Amino acid sequence: MSTAGQVIKCKAAVAWEPGKPLTIEDVEVAPPKAREVRIKVVATGVCRTDWEHLYEREKGMRFRPFPLVLGHEAAGVVESIGPGVTAFSPGDQVIPLFLPQCQECDRCQSLKTNHCRKNWANTQAGVMADGTSRISCQDQQVFQFLGVSSFSQYTVVPDSSLTKIRSDAPLDKVCLLGCGVSTGYGAALKTGKVEKDSTCAVFGLGAVGLAAVMGCKAAGARRIIGIDINPAKFEKAVTLGATDCVNPTDHKKPIQEVVLEMTQGGVDFALECHGSPSVMTAALESTADAWGLCVIAGWNETETMSVKVEKILMGRTLKGTYFGGWKSVQDVPNLVDEYMANKLQLDEFITHKLPLNQINKAFDLLSSGNSIRTVISLW
Amino acid sequence: MSTAGQVIKCKAAVAWEPGKPLTIEDVEVAPPKAREVRIKVVATGVCRTDWEHLYEREKGMRFRPFPLVLGHEAAGVVESIGPGVTAFSPGDQVIPLFLPQCQECDRCQSLKTNHCRKNWANTQAGVMADGTSRISCQDQQVFQFLGVSSFSQYTVVPDSSLTKIRSDAPLDKVCLLGCGVSTGYGAALKTGKVEKDSTCAVFGLGAVGLAAVMGCKAAGARRIIGIDINPAKFEKAVTLGATDCVNPTDHKKPIQEVVLEMTQGGVDFALECHGSPSVMTAALESTADAWGLCVIAGWNETETMSVKVEKILMGRTLKGTYFGGWKSVQDVPNLVDEYMANKLQLDEFITHKLPLNQINKAFDLLSSGNSIRTVISLW
Repeated sequence: MSTAGQVIKCKAAVAWEPGKPLTIEDVEVAPPKAREVRIKVVATGVCRTDWEHLYEREKGMRFRPFPLVLGHEAAGVVESIGPGVTAFSPGDQVIPLFLPQCQECDRCQSLKTNHCRKNWANTQAGVMADGTSRISCQDQQVFQFLGVSSFSQYTVVPDSSLTKIRSDAPLDKVCLLGCGVSTGYGAALKTGKVEKDSTCAVFGLGAVGLAAVMGCKAAGARRIIGIDINPAKFEKAVTLGATDCVNPTDHKKPIQEVVLEMTQGGVDFALECHGSPSVMTAALESTADAWGLCVIAGWNETETMSVKVEKILMGRTLKGTYFGGWKSVQDVPNLVDEYMANKLQLDEFITHKLPLNQINKAFDLLSSGNSIRTVISLW
Repeated sequence: MSTAGQVIKCKAAVAWEPGKPLTIEDVEVAPPKAREVRIKVVATGVCRTDWEHLYEREKGMRFRPFPLVLGHEAAGVVESIGPGVTAFSPGDQVIPLFLPQCQECDRCQSLKTNHCRKNWANTQAGVMADGTSRISCQDQQVFQFLGVSSFSQYTVVPDSSLTKIRSDAPLDKVCLLGCGVSTGYGAALKTGKVEKDSTCAVFGLGAVGLAAVMGCKAAGARRIIGIDINPAKFEKAVTLGATDCVNPTDHKKPIQEVVLEMTQGGVDFALECHGSPSVMTAALESTADAWGLCVIAGWNETETMSVKVEKILMGRTLKGTYFGGWKSVQDVPNLVDEYMANKLQLDEFITHKLPLNQINKAFDLLSSGNSIRTVISLW
């Protein structure tokens, strides 16, 4: 029996207020409006940004209204489409995207950026194009984190924030391409354009950092130094391509000095995948002068980093990446193809699988450094 | 009568100690040693870096030993060559270079940088490859600023820090290609790769900034916003290509907000040509997100700038330029050709001409904002 056009009642993990665990609630998901698609979420990763927004919002995240449903790294199946949607049909396998690609704006037309701003102000505020959310709970509007809200069995997204993927892709794996793995992999390959035989340092070996290591390896880097204060991450880093692993707490010198010594003057490429301003400064200062490039992939919306001017004048470049520089709608299906062809690894990132009702455990695993990615099964 | 092999006695402006005016002295200039060239300096520009090193060294310059002969933006004629020099002969017209190009090191082989480090540690410390200076006064060694010291009628430089230029070039004009004009022009064209029909903002309209304006115009920029707190610079900026001029003190808002409003979201390229960290931050924040590029051309060796992480994550790039990104030995002769073909302007930068014995007046003109460039005639 088709649910198209009907309000769907389903389970979702709702964040009622900052600092409090999520609670599993019965929510109502309204039908998609014009240029919107309702999807059945099959699997979702749990990303540090979800956790930070709930537990560390003072630190690096801007205010976004509560209550909300978190989750933005997912895969699912189209349940129904709203008026004007032409690119999707019910039954399509899809990945929702917190970064849209409308294919019409000047940014989408440019080869220099992937920063499409379609519906941006609204999705950042947790609502759709009409200014409202499609999710409600106990007769109250529940905001949609980054316009996605994948910690719900159903959600609605704009059709420019969704991409169709091949029908044989395992959704409980490729969901990771909705955020972390794509971000790190693209930070190296797309934004950083890491070169063959180059030297690289990756700061922070969570999912984004490990994906950056994988990207550096795919680019043919000669040396890939993985850096984390949690040595439990090193084994996975080596599996994905790290040639050296360094724990800054093992050294008395600042980590940038350690890297400069290891590489006789600095790496060609540094990838910051942690999100902390002091680590960003260290990453920049770990690069070689003359041509060192530091790519910031770690998320931080509110803080300021220090840059010694001379480091820049002596030939270093600082740039950022957002979703790895990928044009979301067009590139994610290609990344899925890479996974299916065993060119890109995803299974290695998944350390835990849990049902939706144990989602707070996924947060605990993440904040304690005991997981890379937990994939939540919504059903 | 040839002076080759002899110590030459001549006039030079000596800086005996920080904060005190230069004094014209009789100095002795030793013959060139291996891979060195002695040149008769015909004309020299007076650059802000010379002035800063004498009067504001606490602010943005590292310590370098005194006494020294300042001056690093010059043109002259080869007087004699030391052993092993093959690229120069007496009588050649030349421009000395504070940035070498040895053509042998990995940096000279790379297309990504112009940061050759031949003799770098020594010339930065004011001496030649053997650790001594070729200039002395009253039996005391006098250091050579950046390895050049063009405020002397004769000086000696490494042969990798010198370029031969065409014999018909007017030395009292092309001397400006030894630093300021090349730096600003290259900041736009070579490092920034300013694009046709783009929007640009140039912060600081001294010689470097005006040259950056000229570079933006040469690149075909659609809009070039010149910014300076001294409106006396605006007429020249318009002559060289500025389409708008803004005095930040005319506005209550921070200058970056003014630029964002003028351009509906920011310029494609911002060029910082002032050397102050707060201006650098303003320049970065004046660029459009998604693809804005901020090039730092203003000199500062000691200070730190603040970068809001989100500005970088949203697609801006921060990079520096040193000598405009030009490969010094190979590119400066081409810039001379551009001047001779009326493609690059130099005469417009020269507001004053003075003899060596009035060099302190040139500093006064510069520090009071009443000159763009004063060219000193050494003879």
